[in-house]
Amino acid sequence: MKKINIGLLGFGTVGTGVARILLEERDLLRARAGVDLNLKYVADIDLTTDRGVALPAGVLIDDAQRVIHDPEVDIVLEMIGGKGIAKDMMLAAIRKGKHVVTANKALLASHGNEIVREASENGVNLAFEASTGGCMPVIKTLRESLVGNRISGMIGILNGTCNYILTKISDEGCPFAEALAEAQTKGYAEADPTLDVEGLDTAHKLAILNSLAYGMEINLNDIYVEGIPRITPMDIEFASEFGYRIKLLAISKDKGEAIEARIHPTMIPFDNLLSNVNGTVNAITFSCSAADDILLYGRGAGMMPTASAVVADIVDLARNMLSCAGVRVPMLSCQMENIKDIPIMPVEDIKTHYYFRFAALDRPGVLSKIAGILGNHQISIKSVHQKGRKTDGAVPIVMLTHRAVEKSVSQALSKITALDVVADKPILIRIEDDDREE
Amino acid sequence: MKKINIGLLGFGTVGTGVARILLEERDLLRARAGVDLNLKYVADIDLTTDRGVALPAGVLIDDAQRVIHDPEVDIVLEMIGGKGIAKDMMLAAIRKGKHVVTANKALLASHGNEIVREASENGVNLAFEASTGGCMPVIKTLRESLVGNRISGMIGILNGTCNYILTKISDEGCPFAEALAEAQTKGYAEADPTLDVEGLDTAHKLAILNSLAYGMEINLNDIYVEGIPRITPMDIEFASEFGYRIKLLAISKDKGEAIEARIHPTMIPFDNLLSNVNGTVNAITFSCSAADDILLYGRGAGMMPTASAVVADIVDLARNMLSCAGVRVPMLSCQMENIKDIPIMPVEDIKTHYYFRFAALDRPGVLSKIAGILGNHQISIKSVHQKGRKTDGAVPIVMLTHRAVEKSVSQALSKITALDVVADKPILIRIEDDDREE
Repeated sequence: MKKINIGLLGFGTVGTGVARILLEERDLLRARAGVDLNLKYVADIDLTTDRGVALPAGVLIDDAQRVIHDPEVDIVLEMIGGKGIAKDMMLAAIRKGKHVVTANKALLASHGNEIVREASENGVNLAFEASTGGCMPVIKTLRESLVGNRISGMIGILNGTCNYILTKISDEGCPFAEALAEAQTKGYAEADPTLDVEGLDTAHKLAILNSLAYGMEINLNDIYVEGIPRITPMDIEFASEFGYRIKLLAISKDKGEAIEARIHPTMIPFDNLLSNVNGTVNAITFSCSAADDILLYGRGAGMMPTASAVVADIVDLARNMLSCAGVRVPMLSCQMENIKDIPIMPVEDIKTHYYFRFAALDRPGVLSKIAGILGNHQISIKSVHQKGRKTDGAVPIVMLTHRAVEKSVSQALSKITALDVVADKPILIRIEDDDREE
Repeated sequence: MKKINIGLLGFGTVGTGVARILLEERDLLRARAGVDLNLKYVADIDLTTDRGVALPAGVLIDDAQRVIHDPEVDIVLEMIGGKGIAKDMMLAAIRKGKHVVTANKALLASHGNEIVREASENGVNLAFEASTGGCMPVIKTLRESLVGNRISGMIGILNGTCNYILTKISDEGCPFAEALAEAQTKGYAEADPTLDVEGLDTAHKLAILNSLAYGMEINLNDIYVEGIPRITPMDIEFASEFGYRIKLLAISKDKGEAIEARIHPTMIPFDNLLSNVNGTVNAITFSCSAADDILLYGRGAGMMPTASAVVADIVDLARNMLSCAGVRVPMLSCQMENIKDIPIMPVEDIKTHYYFRFAALDRPGVLSKIAGILGNHQISIKSVHQKGRKTDGAVPIVMLTHRAVEKSVSQALSKITALDVVADKPILIRIEDDDREE
């Protein structure tokens, strides 16, 4: 039986999970893949910490270069993370003709086009199922299962930290800071949670998925990103009264000439399955020309779920190697020469439904002033709710709008903020509800 | 650019959808697959009906043998259905060295082992993503994305007809016959709905999935099958009071020495995502050693969703042919020599929670008689509900049990049925609720 040698760079959380599956399930993988997957090296600067995985003697080394330069190594796993050394190692491995597997979404979102081009020119694969959605087969589904479909849009919960925090605020009515602290205690959030809670991690993933769904280059910079730290229990409670839950969503839509792509807290109706995806779990819906809506749901992070996706990539590459298939499935879903330059629409141009909450002083005429400004900006109000709950001496006025243009909304809200009867910056939360009338 | 010739047998619903995608999305498929997919033949005995697809001249023929014997045809699509001519055509194509794509779950569930063996011996692929779960990538996910996982169980809604009917009974409180009639009017149920509503269609699909998940031969005959015609609005209402919905579920579990595999109406808790899968949609959860729970959701039937899965298989095969990969992914997920002979556990041996409804005459001592018989059979009652609603002069007594053995339950219910104070055959509905205590 043919043996395929694997070199793992980075013996951290995901690397440990991958090593565990490769060692503990070696027989199972052999029975399924028809090839022996041999973990030849694990390279890490830390040779002493016990990760709970018994590596055979000689496998753990501290010299990543040895992995890259060993001609026997067929597949290199980049599990280092970050954009510095990880990128250098990846490019070096590619230039040595090795296939590379990575889970590094930040690197791919920023430098993916360059790395894919390099891989393509060297006739090797860059596999990255684990970069997005953890164990959910989002990459394979887009690239292979939906190959006969035009993707008109996707909407997903792609960050378990944010989803855990929003679920907790929602269930317990606690403030953001408390929910975040609990997420940190439980290991669901990093000590510095910025990348997660401000939405950038979700944007990394959407940038990758956009490329695969729409046949475009990876474009992170033009995605609109807004995080969850300003979400309050009060807004979650109001949302619930209107039949919505608030989730941090990655949303993209094919608008023909341009792609709409944005990350922000979003109200979605109870009967949307995504609204019932709670805790650290991820889920995504693809809207497709033939298949209609497909939803995937699963653990988007964590040692073993991420390792599951890495191993799927390894077996895919091993199967290619067995049949000398080279780059069998184009890395960005289209043949390199067919990748299009599709721009992402400026967020000012999007059109959606909005929820506003104003902290208004309880004086006559306030509502008419606010409504007047909205009307002047062609923002049509669907309903107004004045709940009488005083916050800081002001009364919350909540409005739901019909579909409006983001640019008009920004302008109107600036003017409303400047009113002397409005105590605070208004809260704006976008609503994603296909069933709502215009 | 290389051209791959496709011969379609059967110009029915699914065949029409496939032809439409191959013709209308030819450029898209070329850009993605890097190969030109040429629909060379569509063979059907009906040459006159307008299917709304403009086939190029000479493509539509009435001679399937010409497709099978044309050496230029690379891939044959069996979209005929049934187990007779479809099987003969499939085997003939395989013996001519052609790859075959099918959506024919009934045929695979009954003769899949033989056909796969034949394909394997001839070095060709049998691809059948569309046989199970429509557009959901269940086959690819099991065989490729979860390759590094042991599957401990799966639980799915795999028949849109049943799910539509149960949703309708649930939403409107109408009887089964009325919901079925509406499903037939809307085209969601066949004129003869037996295969769907009695659960056999779901069993076909579970037989295929079991093989892929557990590395065993396809075994349809030993799966326990019970359909939905005996589900009443009353039981759905009671279920709802206990926090459950009733779905026709395909359930299988790896019990080590044997596989538990059964199709029956099942109560599942509201917080299980499957309980929120309504209408004609399908969904399935795989429980996996590394990935934990993964759920897929999508249209399980219909022209275009099924065609989407067929086209994914075609592109997969085309990519294999481009790289001379032959049978790249083993058809039943393991290498042929590793497929194990794992028995399916007799239903009498399963252990689960139960819901019983007895139509008892309103006399003193009835409850103690019923409870006594259950106790004698080691069936522990969790709760008893006597609702006072009279049906046919009898009062419904509802019981939820702790986990009990099916064999004891059958014996006890026989004895209870024989009591002169019990008016009717008791209703038994199994409960699937991981969170319930023993």
